[in-house]
Amino acid sequence: MPVGTQGTVKAMLPESLSELGAQVLLANTYHLFLRPGHELIRRLGGLHSFMHWDRPILTDSGGFQVFSLGALRQINEDGVHFQSHLDGSSHVLTPESSIAVQEALGADIIMVFDECIPYPSSREYVAASTERSTRWARRCKEARQGEDGAALFGIVQGGMHADLRAKSAADLMQIGFDGYAVGGLSVGEEAHLMYDVMDVTLPLLPANRPRYVMGVGTPENLIEGVSRGVDMFDCVMPTRNARNGVLFTTFGRVSIKQARYLEDPLPIDPECNCYVCRNYSRAYLRHLYQCNEILASVLNTHHNLHYYLQLMADARAAIETDRFTEFRREFYARRDTASSAEK
Amino acid sequence: MPVGTQGTVKAMLPESLSELGAQVLLANTYHLFLRPGHELIRRLGGLHSFMHWDRPILTDSGGFQVFSLGALRQINEDGVHFQSHLDGSSHVLTPESSIAVQEALGADIIMVFDECIPYPSSREYVAASTERSTRWARRCKEARQGEDGAALFGIVQGGMHADLRAKSAADLMQIGFDGYAVGGLSVGEEAHLMYDVMDVTLPLLPANRPRYVMGVGTPENLIEGVSRGVDMFDCVMPTRNARNGVLFTTFGRVSIKQARYLEDPLPIDPECNCYVCRNYSRAYLRHLYQCNEILASVLNTHHNLHYYLQLMADARAAIETDRFTEFRREFYARRDTASSAEK
Repeated sequence: MPVGTQGTVKAMLPESLSELGAQVLLANTYHLFLRPGHELIRRLGGLHSFMHWDRPILTDSGGFQVFSLGALRQINEDGVHFQSHLDGSSHVLTPESSIAVQEALGADIIMVFDECIPYPSSREYVAASTERSTRWARRCKEARQGEDGAALFGIVQGGMHADLRAKSAADLMQIGFDGYAVGGLSVGEEAHLMYDVMDVTLPLLPANRPRYVMGVGTPENLIEGVSRGVDMFDCVMPTRNARNGVLFTTFGRVSIKQARYLEDPLPIDPECNCYVCRNYSRAYLRHLYQCNEILASVLNTHHNLHYYLQLMADARAAIETDRFTEFRREFYARRDTASSAEK
Repeated sequence: MPVGTQGTVKAMLPESLSELGAQVLLANTYHLFLRPGHELIRRLGGLHSFMHWDRPILTDSGGFQVFSLGALRQINEDGVHFQSHLDGSSHVLTPESSIAVQEALGADIIMVFDECIPYPSSREYVAASTERSTRWARRCKEARQGEDGAALFGIVQGGMHADLRAKSAADLMQIGFDGYAVGGLSVGEEAHLMYDVMDVTLPLLPANRPRYVMGVGTPENLIEGVSRGVDMFDCVMPTRNARNGVLFTTFGRVSIKQARYLEDPLPIDPECNCYVCRNYSRAYLRHLYQCNEILASVLNTHHNLHYYLQLMADARAAIETDRFTEFRREFYARRDTASSAEK
């Protein structure tokens, strides 16, 4: 899922996202709650109409951004008091208000309000936070308007502890949700820890419900997640990296600002068939980046989202034809070859 | 002509420009000369290929930007010595090198190297500068590669003095060019002076050659120019204003940042049929602008270029059906009505 923080996937027209095969967009409750406000968006017909996007939207709960505010927030059993990063104004988000905001936005998939636990944290803190997130998850389910509304996903927490992850998963499944996410990953832990948590958590989740790993990640993380049964991801990596001139290719990452591309007539990725690779050279993209031109962000974002969405489409096709193991091996082989060629 | 200063019309895909009906783009010799360099662009196949634009390109001579550098430039009979605004490096542009740069870029229409005379200037300065620009124009024609290359346009100078304009026009026509521009307008003079210069200059230029008023202007300036026989214009006004949230409509200008548009569900211009007006509300566009989102520049630029290009297309259609006087009257009547309604 491309991330559309403030009601727009930065630098992308909605039509381009559709053409690239984006099935769901993620929108951030925290940002839209503060600006322009969920009630305004509701009065204007909901987020789909507001941003001109007619495919599904998933909203996060606002928890991740609120907890990221550090000294600007205070947590208690009821919820979180925080100050806006925009103007310092005071606000409260609770499980109930988070659901209300997400419903006002008109999202198709909404998330329970939880704490994304910092890493590292003490086992005691992780255990207590996870228990509280479970209590909040129950309140979210109770707060949701009717069964015919948005799908509500629970979020497994538990830090890097297998037993706490198992407890969280079991508690959430007892409450019962339309889908299950794994939260608290991609928070600075080493990749093998991320995969360990996926290994112990994903088999516990119902196979007939979507499984979503939040805030992940690199192309490698996605392939590893898919190989462990993950159905959904979101990450700002393709879009944010694009704006910083870092492009994803079949042979690894390209930093387009490098002087080596000054006069390079090749496309970003000679194996890529996207609009950008069909029509523009590395030399032109480097020029746009050096000039801080808006078109640099537009074209780089287009290419990176194409890369991510195509990677997932290819993974799906490989699974459907029972070739995923081979697909995964080829994915790594290409990078190793490119990496060797570099040396 | 939309302005593509650095090899891109800011925030626009070339395909979108084509769809909007842009027939020619203007590119800036000064900027491309400094970065990425005209020889690099030539080696990569020329500017059309570099920026993925297959319709005509007109390049200015670099003179306007170089003269705008103020203390960073020194002028003599040979040409202009100047320091780059990017890194302070020293360069020279002469009539001969300006033509060489424009030819390296592969432009379809190239302009003579001249001085865009500041306003106000003494009559003595205007007269001497205009004489020098005429000598430079002759050198430009002599420097041009063959007759089958780019079209070369002369530029009438002469400040706000009718007799100097007439002398400049006569001298240039004696040298002989493929088209004729009127330069030195939109430099801070009052609108009636601009129209006076058009009134005295345009009738002197050959009717079977394109007549181009450089760097102009507002929608009103364009209508007044067309009514005086101008065929071509370029201006950053639609694109630069767009990025500053100022939008052109049939009823005048809209500053989308204003609080009055906070919850306004209407499109920018209810009479406009462009992609932006068909799909987005003023409230959404204000939100994007307030959030400094890239999509604000993308959508605002699209709308403003649509406005300008449609205005010119409508003017052409009115001329072809002998309705231009009526068209011009309606153009002003709409604004007067909107202006009265406002009060």
